[in-house]
Amino acid sequence: MTTPDVDSLSVVELTEAWPALSDEDRVQGFVMLSWEDAEEFFSHLSAHDAAELVLNIPEYDRQRWLRSLPPDDVADIVQEAPEEEHEAILGLLEPSVREETVALLAYDEDDAGGLMTPRYARLQAGMTAAEAIDYLRQQKSQNAEIIYYGYVVEAEDRLVGVVSFRELVMSPPEQKLRDLMTTEIVTIPEDMDQEEVSRIYAHEDLLCLPVVDAEGCMKGIVTADDIVDVVDEEATEDMQKIGGTEALDAPYLQVGFLEMLRKRGVWLILLLLLGFFTVEAMGRYEEELRKLVVLSLFIPLIISCGGNTGSQASTLVVRAMALDEVRLRDWWRVVKREFVMGLGLGTLLAVAGVLAALLWNMFSSRMGSEPMHMATAVGGSILCVVLWGTLAGSMLPFLLRRCGADPASASAPLVATLVDASGLVIYFTVAGLILQCFAA
Amino acid sequence: MTTPDVDSLSVVELTEAWPALSDEDRVQGFVMLSWEDAEEFFSHLSAHDAAELVLNIPEYDRQRWLRSLPPDDVADIVQEAPEEEHEAILGLLEPSVREETVALLAYDEDDAGGLMTPRYARLQAGMTAAEAIDYLRQQKSQNAEIIYYGYVVEAEDRLVGVVSFRELVMSPPEQKLRDLMTTEIVTIPEDMDQEEVSRIYAHEDLLCLPVVDAEGCMKGIVTADDIVDVVDEEATEDMQKIGGTEALDAPYLQVGFLEMLRKRGVWLILLLLLGFFTVEAMGRYEEELRKLVVLSLFIPLIISCGGNTGSQASTLVVRAMALDEVRLRDWWRVVKREFVMGLGLGTLLAVAGVLAALLWNMFSSRMGSEPMHMATAVGGSILCVVLWGTLAGSMLPFLLRRCGADPASASAPLVATLVDASGLVIYFTVAGLILQCFAA
Repeated sequence: MTTPDVDSLSVVELTEAWPALSDEDRVQGFVMLSWEDAEEFFSHLSAHDAAELVLNIPEYDRQRWLRSLPPDDVADIVQEAPEEEHEAILGLLEPSVREETVALLAYDEDDAGGLMTPRYARLQAGMTAAEAIDYLRQQKSQNAEIIYYGYVVEAEDRLVGVVSFRELVMSPPEQKLRDLMTTEIVTIPEDMDQEEVSRIYAHEDLLCLPVVDAEGCMKGIVTADDIVDVVDEEATEDMQKIGGTEALDAPYLQVGFLEMLRKRGVWLILLLLLGFFTVEAMGRYEEELRKLVVLSLFIPLIISCGGNTGSQASTLVVRAMALDEVRLRDWWRVVKREFVMGLGLGTLLAVAGVLAALLWNMFSSRMGSEPMHMATAVGGSILCVVLWGTLAGSMLPFLLRRCGADPASASAPLVATLVDASGLVIYFTVAGLILQCFAA
Repeated sequence: MTTPDVDSLSVVELTEAWPALSDEDRVQGFVMLSWEDAEEFFSHLSAHDAAELVLNIPEYDRQRWLRSLPPDDVADIVQEAPEEEHEAILGLLEPSVREETVALLAYDEDDAGGLMTPRYARLQAGMTAAEAIDYLRQQKSQNAEIIYYGYVVEAEDRLVGVVSFRELVMSPPEQKLRDLMTTEIVTIPEDMDQEEVSRIYAHEDLLCLPVVDAEGCMKGIVTADDIVDVVDEEATEDMQKIGGTEALDAPYLQVGFLEMLRKRGVWLILLLLLGFFTVEAMGRYEEELRKLVVLSLFIPLIISCGGNTGSQASTLVVRAMALDEVRLRDWWRVVKREFVMGLGLGTLLAVAGVLAALLWNMFSSRMGSEPMHMATAVGGSILCVVLWGTLAGSMLPFLLRRCGADPASASAPLVATLVDASGLVIYFTVAGLILQCFAA
């Protein structure tokens, strides 16, 4: 790949080249943009990239950039920066913004408080509509959206009502806000997890919600466009966990080698060690394998049947839980559903397996003198393994949630590995019984 | 489970009981709500449930409900209803709404056009700010949000500018819109896929965007709160596909038995048939297995190592593609990254595997007279299988996208099954070679 000439890139070109650029080239490309282009470019960077960039650009520019940002964006950058840089970054801010930023830093990044902007339009119940409009007109803010709702607060910012800008304009100018405002308000507790906040937005069709503390005092607002990012982020985390990785917390192409190795390797090593249960299980049936090598031919097929149905079931349940479609107390309903489903799928797959095995034997003749017996043993084993895989896969997320763990940790590879070992025992037992019956 | 008395449920109780209720009980519980409660309850139903409910309630009520909905919600209901009911539903609408609804029905449900509401505030460039405010004040609309932006259009609704309600109020009353409006507008083509629309919202922090046709004529607006649902929906689809199911398109607990059986069974049968490659592979090495039963003990362990790393890699790449972090042309960068990652992970797992095998042998003594030889064979095989699994898993999504298929179809079970068969060949080859070296 040829390095582009970073001194003359457009916003689009810089965006394209960004992931492949060195830190120096990024800074160089960025500072060569016009102020307007740079602003646009900066607003589209992830918090992670923005922090890195801010830390790499010369001090003078750094201050200028930080001062152009609202406090929630600054807080994101501080959180992404190494601990020892926090003070330096905060020192570059204007005192009022520094105060707002420090207040935001007290929140967990994944809480409603970490998501909100503290800049909202405060109104008093005693104001008239005309006074409120005048007041709002004078507010300067980079967050244009916040101006569409005014929040009516009492002492200590206790939230008592909401009034939309449109309602203000449409009301008689002398009407008091207390007679105008909506007092039934959906609010978000400041310590609510962002995933739960996103569920509220998914249920209610709203563009902006107020965040309050335990006393009902207004702390800030969260807007729907922030929630779009949250939903993406949470889904990404869940999907990566389901795939058997720790959540990457950064774009795939930007995760460093050692971090990626750790996030993928830890789970894989754990799964490998769990996999030794399959070695032990195989060892226990060594005699059978020695006497009847044909049994071993179907081992990968049969255990993967269990693994596939199991990871399918667990993925469905994990996602349904994340969407709040299924709760902990629904476990028995899910058991009943998945039992019937396991029987249905098991029957389908058993029939398909018997037919495919007989067909395969017509070409390979490897199934011995009694192919029908062996095919029946394979079919019976598939039925049992699939039923077990379905139940185990669907229940593991419940078990994890019950223990306070993330149900998404019931990853496809984990379920497959767990079902592999038990699937072997089922196979040898069921196939052994069926073949014995035929022999008798 | 006892059936609740559906004649006296609150909104919350009805919501809780909903999934378990029969169609009759749903209608009964719904019509017993107060009008206000019913309106709230109805607005939270999925399009699927809303359609079912509307079709089940008596004709008189049905008309009342349909007439209370904006055209985009009616269009969703019509799309969910069986073909033969479409005319009947449309017939219950007022003529103007019917026209709007029919226009929306021309769009694919997953397109920007299927997502938008056609009700937006049309303004003329020649209006003054005061005239525009007066005009907007008179607009009655159920979608309160649309009033926050006015769209300035020319003949045939060609979009020429946007002006926010706030800008109107803050400008001199006699100023013409053409001097006031923003003309650099991010627009969405009417046939853009909703997933791409959600990417625009994820990049830009916006609450509302206009939808235009190929000639730049305004068709409607899409708001950020609709996008929250889209992002959830798209993530759910991808996750279900990664888990090896067809997308359910409905909440887990509400999918009927036969539909669920089909959506899960089709993939499982396909995977089972693919699994016969493992049977064939095992058959080819029957002689080796007969001579050296100890080889077979490690088969499930080693192929699941390949399956696990493969499904991990494919899940990461599929999600990165969905987020636009990785594009088709990045394939070579991904190959390079995953090759190094595969070597790293393979080395880690090989070392862990050798140590665990030797430890296991201390207790079981099943690894024959030369446990170190066998352990080396296992380690070497793990290294190769993991490298192969990583590369295959990360490339399959690219291959699928290249062929115009959905990369998410590179499901964990599919990758695992594909890697199983090739993993066996790698295992027997590598282990055979290593054991031969020791023997020589």
